[in-house]
Amino acid sequence: MFGKMLFHVRQKSPLIHNITNYVTVNDCANMLLACGASPIMADDVEEAAEITAICQGLNLNIGTLNHNTIPAMIAAGRRAVEMGRPVVLDPVGAGASAFRTETALQLMKELRITVIRGNISEIKTLAKGSGVTRGVDAAKTDMVTEENVKEAAAFVKEFARQSGVIAAVTGEIDLVTDGEKTYVIRNGHSMMSSVTGTGCQLSALTAAFVAANQSTPLEAAAASVCAMGLCGEIGYNRMKALDGNSSYRNYVIDAMYRLTPEELRRGAKYEVCESGHGVVCSDRQGVDRKTESV
Amino acid sequence: MFGKMLFHVRQKSPLIHNITNYVTVNDCANMLLACGASPIMADDVEEAAEITAICQGLNLNIGTLNHNTIPAMIAAGRRAVEMGRPVVLDPVGAGASAFRTETALQLMKELRITVIRGNISEIKTLAKGSGVTRGVDAAKTDMVTEENVKEAAAFVKEFARQSGVIAAVTGEIDLVTDGEKTYVIRNGHSMMSSVTGTGCQLSALTAAFVAANQSTPLEAAAASVCAMGLCGEIGYNRMKALDGNSSYRNYVIDAMYRLTPEELRRGAKYEVCESGHGVVCSDRQGVDRKTESV
Amino acid sequence: MFGKMLFHVRQKSPLIHNITNYVTVNDCANMLLACGASPIMADDVEEAAEITAICQGLNLNIGTLNHNTIPAMIAAGRRAVEMGRPVVLDPVGAGASAFRTETALQLMKELRITVIRGNISEIKTLAKGSGVTRGVDAAKTDMVTEENVKEAAAFVKEFARQSGVIAAVTGEIDLVTDGEKTYVIRNGHSMMSSVTGTGCQLSALTAAFVAANQSTPLEAAAASVCAMGLCGEIGYNRMKALDGNSSYRNYVIDAMYRLTPEELRRGAKYEVCESGHGVVCSDRQGVDRKTESV
Repeated sequence: MFGKMLFHVRQKSPLIHNITNYVTVNDCANMLLACGASPIMADDVEEAAEITAICQGLNLNIGTLNHNTIPAMIAAGRRAVEMGRPVVLDPVGAGASAFRTETALQLMKELRITVIRGNISEIKTLAKGSGVTRGVDAAKTDMVTEENVKEAAAFVKEFARQSGVIAAVTGEIDLVTDGEKTYVIRNGHSMMSSVTGTGCQLSALTAAFVAANQSTPLEAAAASVCAMGLCGEIGYNRMKALDGNSSYRNYVIDAMYRLTPEELRRGAKYEVCESGHGVVCSDRQGVDRKTESV
Repeated sequence: MFGKMLFHVRQKSPLIHNITNYVTVNDCANMLLACGASPIMADDVEEAAEITAICQGLNLNIGTLNHNTIPAMIAAGRRAVEMGRPVVLDPVGAGASAFRTETALQLMKELRITVIRGNISEIKTLAKGSGVTRGVDAAKTDMVTEENVKEAAAFVKEFARQSGVIAAVTGEIDLVTDGEKTYVIRNGHSMMSSVTGTGCQLSALTAAFVAANQSTPLEAAAASVCAMGLCGEIGYNRMKALDGNSSYRNYVIDAMYRLTPEELRRGAKYEVCESGHGVVCSDRQGVDRKTESV
Repeated sequence: MFGKMLFHVRQKSPLIHNITNYVTVNDCANMLLACGASPIMADDVEEAAEITAICQGLNLNIGTLNHNTIPAMIAAGRRAVEMGRPVVLDPVGAGASAFRTETALQLMKELRITVIRGNISEIKTLAKGSGVTRGVDAAKTDMVTEENVKEAAAFVKEFARQSGVIAAVTGEIDLVTDGEKTYVIRNGHSMMSSVTGTGCQLSALTAAFVAANQSTPLEAAAASVCAMGLCGEIGYNRMKALDGNSSYRNYVIDAMYRLTPEELRRGAKYEVCESGHGVVCSDRQGVDRKTESV
């Protein structure tokens, strides 16, 4: 199924409008091109909604938030919602300042967000309406590990249910849930945190996957998380003796450029947990990696 | 001749003022350094004209246009014109929003632009004062191919003549014309469209070539288009099994860093078409690639 | 000693707040990650001070200065000073416009800057309150060479003493001084000037080194200059036949990612000059490279 979703991205080549930070914007654009989508960036309120109107998806990222772009985000988001286009929100650094936390909450309130893609500290901040994050990285005490994955999944599921969004929380273990069904994903490599913007790239990628697979947004979001993590693994395997985080940055994007639906199908490592009675994943722990047909 | 133009860039090392988008700005700076020029970026109206005054050329790019930078573009452009310095305009996404179309038209009206470098959809938008573009890429129906190259060349030539600019329209086939003489260029590689900003880089490069070859701006613009395309070819030839668009991005810039005047002389693939009576290129179709001496 | 300073950066992983230009910001972030620090970028006045408050160091860079970010720089700088956190200023292009020169001087006046990291032309501009720079590169007539190193060191030392800052002036020969003690550093490679932003990256790195070694800011700044230069050398040694400035950019950051304290200890090339009577370095010329233990 995930393979098919990548196939759809390459087939439909969705145009994705990004209002994003200037730190990682170039990588986001190249990642979108790598997966088969097309990027456009426009953050002046004068044109934001008009640009959204010609796009198939919208990616909002508050990484270098400023007052000028907030109205552009709102205008673009409203247009996307009106037109039934998916909106991804990346609440970069929510919790690091009141400005970021409040803006992220405002965007959640004013817009019908499709997917929120962040780290666990950011999601906790949004869940509580406040919080403490260590800059743009998750606090160590928050991290999702094998020890706390059940509790974390229950928490994220509840956040998704109450917020009416798909939550995609990434870290050592990734959780993607719509509040009912939860994907617990174990793709990725720790070296991804040594490159600025792998999270931002994933958010852009998620917008492309959801835009090209509008009828199955949860699965599309989960597929994008698996795809990004898998590219992190493939890129790592390519590392040579003198390579560091800068070469690795290239390798991860290169891997997405080369990734085939079949490779994604085989390389995706996830469990699916469904339950209507608060028991999350308990009956799936230890289950072998799912295999699926494209 | 084109070889000599690259030689002049490396010899004079023109300082180029760029008011450009934040998506591809780093690549523009490294491309300018690769060709032997020097970049400076400054987009606050307070200093824009003053910075232009110490530069040999100005590159205006509306890729992430915002209200603050328009007055800076106007001020910088006026100073460049006053000082007799070349101005390149890259109308990124003209046609994608009224804001971009109108700003590009305003810049053409208020400034004596030397070269407009864009894709065919953007140029059609500017020619008609309106248009439809698919984001920042040319619409498929617009693309210049062997089938429609005569009509496209006639159209671009007329646009250049009426606008009083050199038009450099790039795509599968590139057209560079001042309304009298037209260069039809067949350098480049399709993979260049998988990297964000190869067009932006070319616009910066064109500013450097024209700044270093002020007495022959048409030839300088054509030389820069050939040089960029040739680097796209050289970079592609370097691709290894696991490489994707991110490594390719590096290879294209690397190729410019290494490109010699002699290699450009030998690798440039173009026809020159001159006619005063509306017959464009008809007597040149099928002509062998020109060779020239440095 | 320098080895230990890198060790502290990796051990403490200081979070560095950067208000910097959009040309080289991505490289600054990846360089900070490469050395073991963490980057955060935030330039809206609404959150600037609050972000600084969660950070261990602040890096101010005026490379694409605009009116909106000046108040953010002031607010962030004041908070850093209040909290006893180091502030690095990179006066990119001071002298290229009155706006940059005056802003740099204003920042020096209003904030207790810890380190000013720039090229010799920028420092001369700040020393005189005016000056001429060729864009963002040092003027050739200003460059510090073996011929004028004594005079240059005396000048920079006096600038540091009068300004009450540590001055880190980089070029062919680097000078790092607090007005009393001067490090004359001969690491680095001329190819570093073919990559945009190696100076910006160094300023970010210096903020990380000083933040992780607060009791010895002069030595920390000197260590960061040696480390950056050494990575420039290591990266150059890795260049292959087709590589140019874009691959080199990756190699320099990769080298920092791989650099060990022991390698820095062995690879740092510097002299230390101390004197209270205006004789700078005269008794050290020709002294062998110092070796030191971590």
